[in-house]
Amino acid sequence: MGEAGGAEDRIVTAAVLVIGDEILSGRTPDRNIAHIAAHLDRMGIRLMEARVVPDNQAEIVASLNALRDRYTYLFTTGGIGPTHDDITADAVAAAFGVDISENEKALGRLRQRHAEADLTPGRRRMARIPHGASLIDNPVSQAPGFQLGNVFVMAGVPAIMAAMLDALSPRLKGGKVLKIVNITSDIREGDAAEPLAAVQAAHGDVSIGSYPFFRQGGFGTVIVCRSTSLKDAAAAADAVVAAFKGMGARADIGPAPETD
Amino acid sequence: MGEAGGAEDRIVTAAVLVIGDEILSGRTPDRNIAHIAAHLDRMGIRLMEARVVPDNQAEIVASLNALRDRYTYLFTTGGIGPTHDDITADAVAAAFGVDISENEKALGRLRQRHAEADLTPGRRRMARIPHGASLIDNPVSQAPGFQLGNVFVMAGVPAIMAAMLDALSPRLKGGKVLKIVNITSDIREGDAAEPLAAVQAAHGDVSIGSYPFFRQGGFGTVIVCRSTSLKDAAAAADAVVAAFKGMGARADIGPAPETD
Repeated sequence: MGEAGGAEDRIVTAAVLVIGDEILSGRTPDRNIAHIAAHLDRMGIRLMEARVVPDNQAEIVASLNALRDRYTYLFTTGGIGPTHDDITADAVAAAFGVDISENEKALGRLRQRHAEADLTPGRRRMARIPHGASLIDNPVSQAPGFQLGNVFVMAGVPAIMAAMLDALSPRLKGGKVLKIVNITSDIREGDAAEPLAAVQAAHGDVSIGSYPFFRQGGFGTVIVCRSTSLKDAAAAADAVVAAFKGMGARADIGPAPETD
Repeated sequence: MGEAGGAEDRIVTAAVLVIGDEILSGRTPDRNIAHIAAHLDRMGIRLMEARVVPDNQAEIVASLNALRDRYTYLFTTGGIGPTHDDITADAVAAAFGVDISENEKALGRLRQRHAEADLTPGRRRMARIPHGASLIDNPVSQAPGFQLGNVFVMAGVPAIMAAMLDALSPRLKGGKVLKIVNITSDIREGDAAEPLAAVQAAHGDVSIGSYPFFRQGGFGTVIVCRSTSLKDAAAAADAVVAAFKGMGARADIGPAPETD
């Protein structure tokens, strides 16, 4: 995962900016935030914030600049297609104060897929890249994403976004990976609150999350202990299990069900 | 939907603030933004922005204040459960600069569900409500949400959030509902770009979106024409259909498939 060495000592952060009227109107449910979140988590990169904004240049520019200044990396999805409502590349150029024009290398990618006669002005729009950016491969439909500074610009279609994220990941420096120990219990979350608060107070280096679940077979709570030290996470988890069992509940360390 | 009259003349806006480490770590995919987006769209309320932030008071307060100042309504999800990592109510009190304490009415709701012996300190935390707030009913598990000013604070569990959103909706003033006319075509999006840009230029009051789809049966593009005037949306859609058919493509007005 990118550079070797040093990963144990550094905190690497990120934000996601989802661009598209269709998400905010409810037409299309976003699936990219969850995918990017899980991917970054595996690389030890901490996703600190996600935003969804409409296809409006001023809004995109404002969020781009706020988020790229604040976090190690910013990943955007959406708005790099061929039609008039795809304005992300221009917004990125405006945010960085650089020019944008047709990029020969990007046009070459499009020519891998389209005959010259099919290179409509719309398709050629997808070769417009801000100056100074490097391309991100798109193994699904060729039209590339791009990286400018710490901003990675990807397509909105989930299958293409996922392929671009895989393609760009070698450029990222990973950070401290959070180790996770899950506990699944039949305890009700309201009964778990006090023992959990006590364990959290005694294990300050572990982040302890509590997520209730409701299933046809019953209800219960998943406890997630996260720490850069597996030993610390496991110690907190053992304390949780002991506390819950002391209350007469079941509590098992291991893979946990998805919660609502 | 709320107040009668005037809806045709007013623009009502909203933002969503999703609160929770579990969304940003990739453990739990958010489902609330899409639900709220579609619900507000049906009420003519325009969702302008959505954000996801971690369980961190400073981050929650900053986003609460930025978003409640800017939009007519702000809806939050998550962080109102019984455990130590549920800090949304305190963050809202801090953002508004008001006190927070156990609310008798909220405690009464909890007593509908729990015997006195089961009202643990954790469960009683769910009765802590910022001063000046009014409660939002929770028909699923009783522990209420609350409204303070233009901020509506809801649970994160999707089934409970949806029930709370239904319960609070009579308090919202609706706005101009956007009428939608969909077109489904077998045209490739790259070929659709030029005719769409021309139709958009000629129909400035209509927002025209373009969404490609990929299915086992083939590919194509969904065009979405949105306007407060159904007549205007339909006129733009007719122009799109005529342009696509003139290019030898199929194009049908009516319910459209979901796009990626």
